[in-house]
Amino acid sequence: MEVKMDEAALRDFLRRDFTQVADDFDFVEIAPPFVTMALTASDKHLRPGGTVSGPSMFALADVCAYFCILSVLGPVALAVTTNCAIDFMRKPAPGRLLCRMELLKLGRALAVCEGRLFAEAEPDRPVARASLTYSIPPGQSERPRTA
Amino acid sequence: MEVKMDEAALRDFLRRDFTQVADDFDFVEIAPPFVTMALTASDKHLRPGGTVSGPSMFALADVCAYFCILSVLGPVALAVTTNCAIDFMRKPAPGRLLCRMELLKLGRALAVCEGRLFAEAEPDRPVARASLTYSIPPGQSERPRTA
Amino acid sequence: MEVKMDEAALRDFLRRDFTQVADDFDFVEIAPPFVTMALTASDKHLRPGGTVSGPSMFALADVCAYFCILSVLGPVALAVTTNCAIDFMRKPAPGRLLCRMELLKLGRALAVCEGRLFAEAEPDRPVARASLTYSIPPGQSERPRTA
Amino acid sequence: MEVKMDEAALRDFLRRDFTQVADDFDFVEIAPPFVTMALTASDKHLRPGGTVSGPSMFALADVCAYFCILSVLGPVALAVTTNCAIDFMRKPAPGRLLCRMELLKLGRALAVCEGRLFAEAEPDRPVARASLTYSIPPGQSERPRTA
Repeated sequence: MEVKMDEAALRDFLRRDFTQVADDFDFVEIAPPFVTMALTASDKHLRPGGTVSGPSMFALADVCAYFCILSVLGPVALAVTTNCAIDFMRKPAPGRLLCRMELLKLGRALAVCEGRLFAEAEPDRPVARASLTYSIPPGQSERPRTA
Repeated sequence: MEVKMDEAALRDFLRRDFTQVADDFDFVEIAPPFVTMALTASDKHLRPGGTVSGPSMFALADVCAYFCILSVLGPVALAVTTNCAIDFMRKPAPGRLLCRMELLKLGRALAVCEGRLFAEAEPDRPVARASLTYSIPPGQSERPRTA
Repeated sequence: MEVKMDEAALRDFLRRDFTQVADDFDFVEIAPPFVTMALTASDKHLRPGGTVSGPSMFALADVCAYFCILSVLGPVALAVTTNCAIDFMRKPAPGRLLCRMELLKLGRALAVCEGRLFAEAEPDRPVARASLTYSIPPGQSERPRTA
Repeated sequence: MEVKMDEAALRDFLRRDFTQVADDFDFVEIAPPFVTMALTASDKHLRPGGTVSGPSMFALADVCAYFCILSVLGPVALAVTTNCAIDFMRKPAPGRLLCRMELLKLGRALAVCEGRLFAEAEPDRPVARASLTYSIPPGQSERPRTA
């Protein structure tokens, strides 16, 4: 799958579209249809006990799906998340929290991603899984409409 | 349905269990099996254009489900969210964002909540809907196990 | 909300679009944005012990959402379900299983429904809850596109 | 991961626990934490046009998750599905429909699976993705409780 935006281009979009949280996230690997990002957890992302909060994990999955789509679709104005289903399975070990997201479908109207979150030290022990749907504004996707 | 914790008691739990975000949320109504809470959106909750971000809406739904369960279950140590399915449907109008959550099931092991998010000025035009499952630690629920 | 199709018209669509299963389902109430349908459970819908199976509950929710959208959108060729999140909460009591579905959003590209399933004898004790998204083919909805 | 039940043992359970639908499903591969099953679609599984219906895809994902858990947990009385999130992405090509399910977590109270459905002829073009949670009756899992 062709990379339409490289890491530098995606980073620019991150700074532009996610102003308030751009410093929280990092790109780890851009290999469409996969994109891996990391959350640099600070105090605001933690619950008592030092566990990364559910909303912070949701935020990581959401931003990672967004850039997973953008890496393939190119630098277009993208619509919002329309749906997310997330399962929280374990408490993450301390350290960087990663999300590896896969683009499963890029239709004319909808894009569907699926991914897993895991502590960098334990890649084979997912702490959460998430699937997300983004709606794509009319005319932005060159692909034949499948949904 | 009996109220096991009133607003003052719930507020204490909010300050204890959600230290970093306690100031972001407010109780609007506690009427089990319904609990309504509000997000006082500040800059950190907004995306460019002034829209409340998806993760902020998720956070509101998550905290509201937690206190919806606690209001009926009483002041016990509650386990974490295990699942959330959320649909984002419209951009919220400016102003306070509310979430009205209903406890649909309180079993021995699992509690299920469902609710809607809406701008305070437009209660009949939901901006999002969410369903969440919380796992309850063994021995914390007096109810007969149904799941 | 205006009813674009009455019960007779919806029944015709049921026979046409759901040939193999039309006899399994019945309309109970058409009151947009709400539509209530019933599953007439026969042996093929049951698991050992006489419980209605998960797939049969899914089927009821799916068909009910479809006709909930059609009752408002009118007799148009509707695209498929794109997403469903369903929580199974209790075993249904014997007798007819009902689903009451509400249309939460009808956009140009997507329609979102949410509903509950319950035994006819116990309307206040939901056995399951479900939310579904349907994609609407281009040009079928007169509404301004919101997603 | 140890296989606690081989194909013959799983097939016995399929005939016992899924009496009405046992003939619809086949085991393709048992390689814990993965189990792949097939739906032998007949008229009752199809919508007009010959497409496999949503409820039939749900049924395949549900039964595949059940046996994915059983293959690792062993021959125990398993509780029901508590949650499913499913995304329908494409129309399946004609022929056998497969589901490859992975067990992501086996806790004391909950098991979480995730998988994809695809036509046998197009394994790299998923027609749907699904995640499911099963609740496990107390005392059935030897594993330390994690949720």
